[in-house]
Amino acid sequence: MSTPATPYLHVDAERLRTNIRRLADRAADAGVALRPHAKTHKCPEIGRLQLDAGAVGLTVATIGEAEAFVEGGCADVFVGYPLWVTEGAGARLRSLAERATVAFGVDSAAGAEQAGRWLAGSGIEVLVEVDSGHHRTGVPPDEAGAVAAAAERAGLPVRGVFTFPGHSYALDALRSAAQDEAAALAAAAASLRAQGIEPRVVSGGSTPSLRDADLGVLTELRPGVYVFGDAQQWELGTTAPQDVALTCRATVVSHAGGRLVLDAGSKAIGADRAAYATGWGRLPALPDARVVLLSEHHAVVDVAGAPLPPLGSVLDLVPNHVCAAVNLHDVLWVGEDRLLPWAVTARGRNA
Amino acid sequence: MSTPATPYLHVDAERLRTNIRRLADRAADAGVALRPHAKTHKCPEIGRLQLDAGAVGLTVATIGEAEAFVEGGCADVFVGYPLWVTEGAGARLRSLAERATVAFGVDSAAGAEQAGRWLAGSGIEVLVEVDSGHHRTGVPPDEAGAVAAAAERAGLPVRGVFTFPGHSYALDALRSAAQDEAAALAAAAASLRAQGIEPRVVSGGSTPSLRDADLGVLTELRPGVYVFGDAQQWELGTTAPQDVALTCRATVVSHAGGRLVLDAGSKAIGADRAAYATGWGRLPALPDARVVLLSEHHAVVDVAGAPLPPLGSVLDLVPNHVCAAVNLHDVLWVGEDRLLPWAVTARGRNA
Repeated sequence: MSTPATPYLHVDAERLRTNIRRLADRAADAGVALRPHAKTHKCPEIGRLQLDAGAVGLTVATIGEAEAFVEGGCADVFVGYPLWVTEGAGARLRSLAERATVAFGVDSAAGAEQAGRWLAGSGIEVLVEVDSGHHRTGVPPDEAGAVAAAAERAGLPVRGVFTFPGHSYALDALRSAAQDEAAALAAAAASLRAQGIEPRVVSGGSTPSLRDADLGVLTELRPGVYVFGDAQQWELGTTAPQDVALTCRATVVSHAGGRLVLDAGSKAIGADRAAYATGWGRLPALPDARVVLLSEHHAVVDVAGAPLPPLGSVLDLVPNHVCAAVNLHDVLWVGEDRLLPWAVTARGRNA
Repeated sequence: MSTPATPYLHVDAERLRTNIRRLADRAADAGVALRPHAKTHKCPEIGRLQLDAGAVGLTVATIGEAEAFVEGGCADVFVGYPLWVTEGAGARLRSLAERATVAFGVDSAAGAEQAGRWLAGSGIEVLVEVDSGHHRTGVPPDEAGAVAAAAERAGLPVRGVFTFPGHSYALDALRSAAQDEAAALAAAAASLRAQGIEPRVVSGGSTPSLRDADLGVLTELRPGVYVFGDAQQWELGTTAPQDVALTCRATVVSHAGGRLVLDAGSKAIGADRAAYATGWGRLPALPDARVVLLSEHHAVVDVAGAPLPPLGSVLDLVPNHVCAAVNLHDVLWVGEDRLLPWAVTARGRNA
């Protein structure tokens, strides 16, 4: 296989395996289950590496992703999302449940009742989503028991509770978000027990909050980004630059205005930019450089006084948010001298 | 074909045809050529509608897009990008030139010389890119002649000059950006003439700057977004909400925190947010509502006091930047009662 044309995503296989192994070991040492979020890589090969390292199953965001990973050999999937289960969605979930252990999220009694119409008696379990401070989806912790009771009435066994501490994606909030997470999950578990429902799983964990996760409360971790890292994690201090396992390889196409213009834009690396991010991505070879303008096929880089790499040179660009970048590509190119294409099978499986 | 599962992109075919026809008529009346940017739709069916309405050809951003549209029947493509032409890129461009008229952009003498190594004598023409104020790629106008002369020396015939007035994407900058565009192109054309090179094409035009484009200077327009419109154009005042032809259909999955949560996130509509945008998209049914939080599979909507649409209802969400949204989907669903899938053939063709 000849070298692909730029821009393409490159994966350093050794760093990837190290990242997977390091967290698997930590989870095993702590006696907590690891159920990585596969939306980051959308790639069955990488899901298998995680499972082989001891993950109990995979987390996904959509039924389409669940289908892709079950098809790819995963026997246990959790759709970490408050699905609104239509008749069509119910049929797809039932079909999946014939081949794998399947669970999904609920965050309202109405959602649980709707799901029960199509899934009662299927054996598919639910976890109640709790808002631990990110204020996206999820019920307040003390309402989790009522939603769990509604689910059981609707014929859906309740496995436990889960949250996403997304407010950990901020400088200096990592520890407090992890504390919020533990407090919310503990309160939600108590709310279930008050309804006579014992939560078998108490699930949390984003990549930034991992370091401070309270493994006395959590029984399961669902990080996604840790397999690759990205510029956001680099700037949060939660992935060291030398551990970043995925970059977008891009060609210098212009020196207009004394800056560097790369052929990787938002259609190759994504347009995500957290409030704390210093630009739209980072360059390991030029740590002081910043991507100051990003359009669909251009990353304009201020090199901060460094010599401009020549036109035609190929550089590694670390995306801000690796999940978004991967979702733009059909293939990850893996390895060093001889690059192997790994299919991003679940790309675009939004539904 | 049954209704697709949400989130999916829906195209109103009547609005699409009206948008295409309206601009084609205006260009014809003004005697300027229209070469729409096909990166917006990436869909050969829509390219054919534009060509049937009188477009002289299509603009694309990458060689991969050019291949997709030539394969789809387009006989004249311009890659509006300063390509760095490797041996592989040269072979692909030569192959395309056997089936279509092909041109591309240059913004440096070195880029022109590199391209000449592989393309001299192929008949493929170049246009010199000029910076008219967006400060992305392109040479200062008075340097255009030197780049053009380098291209001709390298064996690449020069068709003319082009610019992208991307700084028109700002409130109250539409008119001034269009004035900058005309001034830069006029100066660049003069710079070519000073080298004895007559520009046959003077090309500009983004969707926001169209209204004020100086059709005394420009001989060709390259807008993209006008076919669909989007929330950015809506908020700029350059597309009326009732002309928006593409929406993301999304299901209400949660009422957490008294807000509306839709199952369309950045992986369905893109994460783009211009500085002037009031949120991450707009809802025609709830004009005062704003998308206040966007993650990969969630759009959290503050409905500004309106009654919350019920869980399970399906709403239309207008993406901020339609080009980014389309690039996330394999299919556009077109029509009213019976939806037809149109393939987004050039999706992900970044290289």
